[in-house]
Amino acid sequence: MSELKNDRFLRALLRQPVDVTPVWMMRQAGRYLPEYRASRTRAGSFMDLCKNPDLACEVTLQPLERYPLDAAILFSDILTIPDAMGLGLYFETGEGPRFKKTVRTQKDVDDLPIPKAETDLDYVVKAVSTIRGALNGRVPLIGFSGSPWTLATYMVEGGSSKDFREIKKLVYGQPDVLHQMLDKLALSVTDYLNAQIRAGAQAVQIFDTWGGSLTPEGYLNFSLAYMRKIVDGLIRENEGRKVPVILFTKNGGQWLEAMADVGADALGLDWMTDIGEARKRVGHKVALQGNMDPAVLYASPEAIRSQVADILQRFGSGNGHVFNLGHGITPEVDPAHAGAFIESVHELSAQYHQA
Amino acid sequence: MSELKNDRFLRALLRQPVDVTPVWMMRQAGRYLPEYRASRTRAGSFMDLCKNPDLACEVTLQPLERYPLDAAILFSDILTIPDAMGLGLYFETGEGPRFKKTVRTQKDVDDLPIPKAETDLDYVVKAVSTIRGALNGRVPLIGFSGSPWTLATYMVEGGSSKDFREIKKLVYGQPDVLHQMLDKLALSVTDYLNAQIRAGAQAVQIFDTWGGSLTPEGYLNFSLAYMRKIVDGLIRENEGRKVPVILFTKNGGQWLEAMADVGADALGLDWMTDIGEARKRVGHKVALQGNMDPAVLYASPEAIRSQVADILQRFGSGNGHVFNLGHGITPEVDPAHAGAFIESVHELSAQYHQA
Repeated sequence: MSELKNDRFLRALLRQPVDVTPVWMMRQAGRYLPEYRASRTRAGSFMDLCKNPDLACEVTLQPLERYPLDAAILFSDILTIPDAMGLGLYFETGEGPRFKKTVRTQKDVDDLPIPKAETDLDYVVKAVSTIRGALNGRVPLIGFSGSPWTLATYMVEGGSSKDFREIKKLVYGQPDVLHQMLDKLALSVTDYLNAQIRAGAQAVQIFDTWGGSLTPEGYLNFSLAYMRKIVDGLIRENEGRKVPVILFTKNGGQWLEAMADVGADALGLDWMTDIGEARKRVGHKVALQGNMDPAVLYASPEAIRSQVADILQRFGSGNGHVFNLGHGITPEVDPAHAGAFIESVHELSAQYHQA
Repeated sequence: MSELKNDRFLRALLRQPVDVTPVWMMRQAGRYLPEYRASRTRAGSFMDLCKNPDLACEVTLQPLERYPLDAAILFSDILTIPDAMGLGLYFETGEGPRFKKTVRTQKDVDDLPIPKAETDLDYVVKAVSTIRGALNGRVPLIGFSGSPWTLATYMVEGGSSKDFREIKKLVYGQPDVLHQMLDKLALSVTDYLNAQIRAGAQAVQIFDTWGGSLTPEGYLNFSLAYMRKIVDGLIRENEGRKVPVILFTKNGGQWLEAMADVGADALGLDWMTDIGEARKRVGHKVALQGNMDPAVLYASPEAIRSQVADILQRFGSGNGHVFNLGHGITPEVDPAHAGAFIESVHELSAQYHQA
């Protein structure tokens, strides 16, 4: 593998000194970019795009051609594992993800296979190695997976949900069945992320989009416990470098102390938590990634710059900050605004990294 | 007015001793009840039901006929004020509330009238006095309003929103315009709640459904500051009794300290905060209302009872707890499960109220 030319992102995740704060954007390869929409049209469906390693590589690299981002993230979907378990993932226009089969009973859980990533999710593994080759050491590549709880919500509900009715029936009525399902998912995610790491992912992020729908105790038992199992089972060093792990629970701001204790290197923050307060609470244990409200990107470049300055000032001087949005960039954002965001982070952060 | 026979709810809000923990449910007069659905069908549209004081009274009392609830809450919609401002509220099936006109510019805000509740919202005032008469002292009646920020989100977006794009443009790009709008809304809400109190509401709740979509600083500036203005302007005593004020910000668990400082008597909690922890943080200043996950009601009566026991134990002995759900009861809940919930609260809480 070629030498890494820009390792700011990996250094910041390990709380090592950097020249400027590294920045990337969740969903940076996405619909706000016209070149992405063109690739998507050529591919056919969204899943056709995910399952074609060359096209997945193409769209992964698109935002890097436009912006001086400090990391690339594998283009894929969070629901590849349930799809590989045979649930039949599909997308209906304007409806979000759906599954042909749901998992709600003891028998459903018993019948659930644990996919072997190298074979059952070979298209993802192939995409990772293709992207690593194409990046040629420019920036590190992030691999990712949905968290067991988050995957389970879609598998039990059969798609997106407003109130998580079916999975909450299991939480409050049949927790044992749910725990067995989450165990299988934790094993699957561990194998999946390790396959990504072996194929070249230099950091991994676990997306826990729906952990924030649980009670505090429910979060610990049904979401965080399984992320801990994954972290315990991950390859933490590869190619002679540490492979940092990032945990991101949307709406998890009240539980940062517990999250900081599971052995991850960094926590992703949404915009509902003050990053300065978060640093005081857990910054001695983990790096922090975040946390600008993605809706700031709808405002003017001047307003974007001002919000970037505010977050940098809240975090303050020193190590352990990766700048990001508090959630994914939305399809309606003007690409020039994303550019203003990234530029502002680099320009305005230098003052916080002087020796 | 006839004497109040059950004042547990009012006493608990003022952190006075009670025999058992009082309980009510947000959206207790609602679609999960077949008798509500029948009244709604007779009324015509949802707004026809809201605007007919006799029918609003009828549905307000329906849950009290079924369950030993400790409070009634006015049946109405949170968007009556923007409707009275001339924005044209309507409901599309399955789509939630919509407005014919939106408010996005300085001119839109300048043109916005401040409704006089006694005349422009006379149907609400009439409903309150009708319900008070019909209750005949059985339990106290709660009046309510949406918070200025929450009303503004609907007025700017033109309806429900996933990412609050249009109002966030104002937050980050034209905060002055938004502040003028929120000022008008705070005046309108104050007048509206005071009219409800004069007509017989014995406590009031401000619903800040969308405050949790803001950053911590944004919450203080755009939501909490205006709820404080309202609290400052409310009639706090009527008919020789205190009129308690409850603030409820969904997803506001990180900001309870700030909320406890605005002069309200109680804070509503969603289920993402541990009520025992919340009590430690703010229980010396305010009562707490909550906080069972409404999805627990999809589980069995035994599971419901166990969750009620857990929350009572977390709160512990002593005064200042009103039991509630952490958000509104959902249409698909079995009415028998709501009954099991209410019964459990009364049965299991007595032990925490012995002298």
